[in-house]
Amino acid sequence: MRAITIPEPGGPDALVWAEVPDPQPAEGEVLIDVAASAVNRADLLQRQGFYDPPPGSSPYPGLECAGRITALGPGVHGWAVGDEVCALLAGGGYAEKVAVPAGQVLPLPDGLDLVTAAALPEVACTVWSNVFMIAHLRPGETLLVHGGSSGIGTMAIQLAKAVGARVAVTAGSAEKLARCAELGADVLIDYHQQDFVAEVREATDGKGADVILDIVGAKYLERNVKALAVNGRLAIIGMQGGVKAELNIGALLAKRAAITAAGLRARPLQEKAAIVAAVREHVWPLIGNGQVRPVVDRTLPMADAAEAHRVVDASSHVGKVILTV
Amino acid sequence: MRAITIPEPGGPDALVWAEVPDPQPAEGEVLIDVAASAVNRADLLQRQGFYDPPPGSSPYPGLECAGRITALGPGVHGWAVGDEVCALLAGGGYAEKVAVPAGQVLPLPDGLDLVTAAALPEVACTVWSNVFMIAHLRPGETLLVHGGSSGIGTMAIQLAKAVGARVAVTAGSAEKLARCAELGADVLIDYHQQDFVAEVREATDGKGADVILDIVGAKYLERNVKALAVNGRLAIIGMQGGVKAELNIGALLAKRAAITAAGLRARPLQEKAAIVAAVREHVWPLIGNGQVRPVVDRTLPMADAAEAHRVVDASSHVGKVILTV
Repeated sequence: MRAITIPEPGGPDALVWAEVPDPQPAEGEVLIDVAASAVNRADLLQRQGFYDPPPGSSPYPGLECAGRITALGPGVHGWAVGDEVCALLAGGGYAEKVAVPAGQVLPLPDGLDLVTAAALPEVACTVWSNVFMIAHLRPGETLLVHGGSSGIGTMAIQLAKAVGARVAVTAGSAEKLARCAELGADVLIDYHQQDFVAEVREATDGKGADVILDIVGAKYLERNVKALAVNGRLAIIGMQGGVKAELNIGALLAKRAAITAAGLRARPLQEKAAIVAAVREHVWPLIGNGQVRPVVDRTLPMADAAEAHRVVDASSHVGKVILTV
Repeated sequence: MRAITIPEPGGPDALVWAEVPDPQPAEGEVLIDVAASAVNRADLLQRQGFYDPPPGSSPYPGLECAGRITALGPGVHGWAVGDEVCALLAGGGYAEKVAVPAGQVLPLPDGLDLVTAAALPEVACTVWSNVFMIAHLRPGETLLVHGGSSGIGTMAIQLAKAVGARVAVTAGSAEKLARCAELGADVLIDYHQQDFVAEVREATDGKGADVILDIVGAKYLERNVKALAVNGRLAIIGMQGGVKAELNIGALLAKRAAITAAGLRARPLQEKAAIVAAVREHVWPLIGNGQVRPVVDRTLPMADAAEAHRVVDASSHVGKVILTV
């Protein structure tokens, strides 16, 4: 088969569409003929040599895919050859074929085509696990989403609205904020022009956000703690603004607040399977009935993965960038 | 009545046993004739002027008491004049009488006298709410308790052992560690002599602690994150080692770990009542059957509160210091 390989880490042109050996489904795995994958920020880090795949997983980038099952490894139940599915991957989505543990496979949501479904697994699993399973966002609470127009952001806005929460978003332009508003965001904050702490407080009668979904890390830590409500939960899923920052424990204690930080890729199989099962139960019906829709910025051929990475590198997109085989 | 007043914040002698007006039970409150109270570190801060009582609560120190109910405010159900009880207070325990919301009152555990019961409400509610309700310590997991011989520590050791967890403790002397071992602690760490990160890792096959109950704050933040296991939870309840410290978000994310910080005193009534109800359900039976026992260092008359504060200031005690009326 062909896959996007990274002979030498570096810029977007480090991605090379090349002939590689076919993967084989191990015990408990299915083999998927990939119709599409999608770009995640972690792929950009992997391309630059900063984020090695976990031991035992595919060396190629790509944390999600959609496609057709073409073979079952031993001990797989509940899936059949020919099933159209999408899947959460530890790697290897940028390829014609990928083997994945059956617990990370999802049926296509009702009404979605194979290409669009590739935009879903990472954002649905990341948002559901962090905002709902870890931070327990409840109806009537306020969620602050940093990067509201990103793939993660567009899913977080819609899921939070679907459960009856209020949503504030930050983004870097009026155009991006307008897209967030279309998806249901209630409070729009241009981080170039406005102070998100002040804006969130003003929008919540001084209370602050009950949950913050953060991709910035160090640069926002102090302000995120300030923007939290009493009993607030800060869920950090990215560190685009650095790794280390001063934490005011006194401020955290005064609010009885929590800081969590979690990714998906390194989790053991059973944790991933539990998240995927929860997404299938709670998120899939909302996509099936049209309440939540994948937001796709553009679709490019897999051989143009370098161009797709340039788009995400530049943060000029809204929603997901899909790669088709 | 008489109460310990603080005419001028300062050292232990700032505490003055003086005549003050009697408290009156408001709606939903009971009036307790105090038999005993107990010293908490927060009392030392209040004495020094660093920890004002929350608005509306008693100006006198004392976050817990035991005694007899002598009057009921309007709308109180489930309690009667003459009941022997103990209670979690927002203040005012260092006094002959105190009014307290009925939701913060507990019956005496089976077999406990009125004086000893004064040692229980703060430590039982603090440990249960943080280690179990917030950090969800589970059977088979490892709890690291900093200050294992403190009132909080001695309760945390026993409760964690009672639910089937493994317990590591830090303390400042061999004598204190020996007392922790008597209460069931499995791993004993002298923080003057040993590195708790290395000791906890060695005791857990390199995994680290699933839950850490921390009273130190800033000074231990980096090492606490290092000592956490994957999916670990750091529950900070005190800041004896400072308020601000650098947090390595990358280290937190690599472990999918959580940091929480919470106190009891400032919580709204309904949250305190929920914690007290959980303590009555889960902790009281363990005290009633002797599995968990209050650890009392010494009992002093209320008029000697200054001496009691000197003992706690010097950290020479093990367990709780009780003050009797």
